[in-house]
Amino acid sequence: MQVLIVHCHPEPGSFNAALTGDARETLERAGHSVDVADLYAEGFDPVERREHFDDRLDPSRFKPLDEQRHAVNHDRLAPQVVQDIERLKRADLVILQFPLWWHGPPAMLKGWFDRVFVYGGLYSGQRRFDRGPLSSRRALCSVTTGGPRETFSTYGRSGDITTFMWSLHCSLYYVGFDVLAPQIVYGVQGGGLSYEAEDDFQRRLEIARKEWRARLPALDDEAAIPFSGWQDWDDRGVLKERHPLRWRV
Amino acid sequence: MQVLIVHCHPEPGSFNAALTGDARETLERAGHSVDVADLYAEGFDPVERREHFDDRLDPSRFKPLDEQRHAVNHDRLAPQVVQDIERLKRADLVILQFPLWWHGPPAMLKGWFDRVFVYGGLYSGQRRFDRGPLSSRRALCSVTTGGPRETFSTYGRSGDITTFMWSLHCSLYYVGFDVLAPQIVYGVQGGGLSYEAEDDFQRRLEIARKEWRARLPALDDEAAIPFSGWQDWDDRGVLKERHPLRWRV
Repeated sequence: MQVLIVHCHPEPGSFNAALTGDARETLERAGHSVDVADLYAEGFDPVERREHFDDRLDPSRFKPLDEQRHAVNHDRLAPQVVQDIERLKRADLVILQFPLWWHGPPAMLKGWFDRVFVYGGLYSGQRRFDRGPLSSRRALCSVTTGGPRETFSTYGRSGDITTFMWSLHCSLYYVGFDVLAPQIVYGVQGGGLSYEAEDDFQRRLEIARKEWRARLPALDDEAAIPFSGWQDWDDRGVLKERHPLRWRV
Repeated sequence: MQVLIVHCHPEPGSFNAALTGDARETLERAGHSVDVADLYAEGFDPVERREHFDDRLDPSRFKPLDEQRHAVNHDRLAPQVVQDIERLKRADLVILQFPLWWHGPPAMLKGWFDRVFVYGGLYSGQRRFDRGPLSSRRALCSVTTGGPRETFSTYGRSGDITTFMWSLHCSLYYVGFDVLAPQIVYGVQGGGLSYEAEDDFQRRLEIARKEWRARLPALDDEAAIPFSGWQDWDDRGVLKERHPLRWRV
């Protein structure tokens, strides 16, 4: 199996970097081939802007999606984008490794979606969701949070973690991925916010790494998060009347 | 009233720019003072990275939150960050104007949170949520989407829009804001994905602008989205047992 890890953390000595290292080592030992896209180390520019398009469809007004499609059709995408699309197409499994910053991915990773998930290339009006170009591939998010686990529960003050993951999961499904349940390590770093003694903290992180290494070899057996697809929707893109997924009172 | 519009779109001729212009004009006409932070035009760098900290607490390992707090305490924050914190502190109302890209804000705006909502400055362990430094201020998101309205409904294939807004709303509340319901214009641009004739499309956008201009002068009368606060939580940061907000079966 070919694996792509999209790694997003500015510090090579971070806990996120340790998790990426664990994933690479574990998956390689299981006979898989692992490619790591280290966004910070590679100097990825996450801002979608006119300067990335050197052969403009419309030089007078910058419409990002129109320019993306035009660049795809004329082989003029920026080299970083071309490279990461190729990496995605080669991969059977994609792991996104990042810290939750402000209830979402760091800007560096958010912009990787903005630029690499390119209109006319990784999706189009007809080729998206379960008909997306990356269907039959799997993806999962491996995430660290600052706040402790209890605060991200249904009644926790941080808010339900499932909701914060939903945007990313929808984006991955949009281009066709089967999305696996996220791997989440709570209460990492916290920059002075730590809720426990340093010893306990380090021991907990070691347990988290062990759990991650234990999960990785068995990802193939996991069921993906269920999403509805084209056959479930009517012409307006809404779940059909009487569809079994509709709530019945 | 002092208003800050954080405007995030790369094209000055965009529909988002028109909405920002409408807001500025409408609010100024009502006697308010309006400041626009145009992130693209100002060349904001949304990537939190070591290079932004010239007086490091720990030069060997880059821990973003620790360095943020250290920079706050020693007056060494980057000038762009200092400027936008001052703008936030001056504002009674903050409007975030942006297109929904990949189920969230563009990287440019996401990174504005990552860098400007600075630890030790705009929040700390004790000063957050309803005790955040920006409490008694109001914020709202004004958003455009590519997909049409029906697809963002509960049973729509784009997914429930409320869920995609939740991360941002939680981030705004975290530093103290009262968050108003978002203003959402559906089916904008679409880069070739438009679902209707150009005439109808333009007419619909004009109606959307009219609605926005009509809403703006009355924002003061609107109730904020309800969030739980410190008095609702136990020591673990979880809603107290028997709290009325807990579901009862």
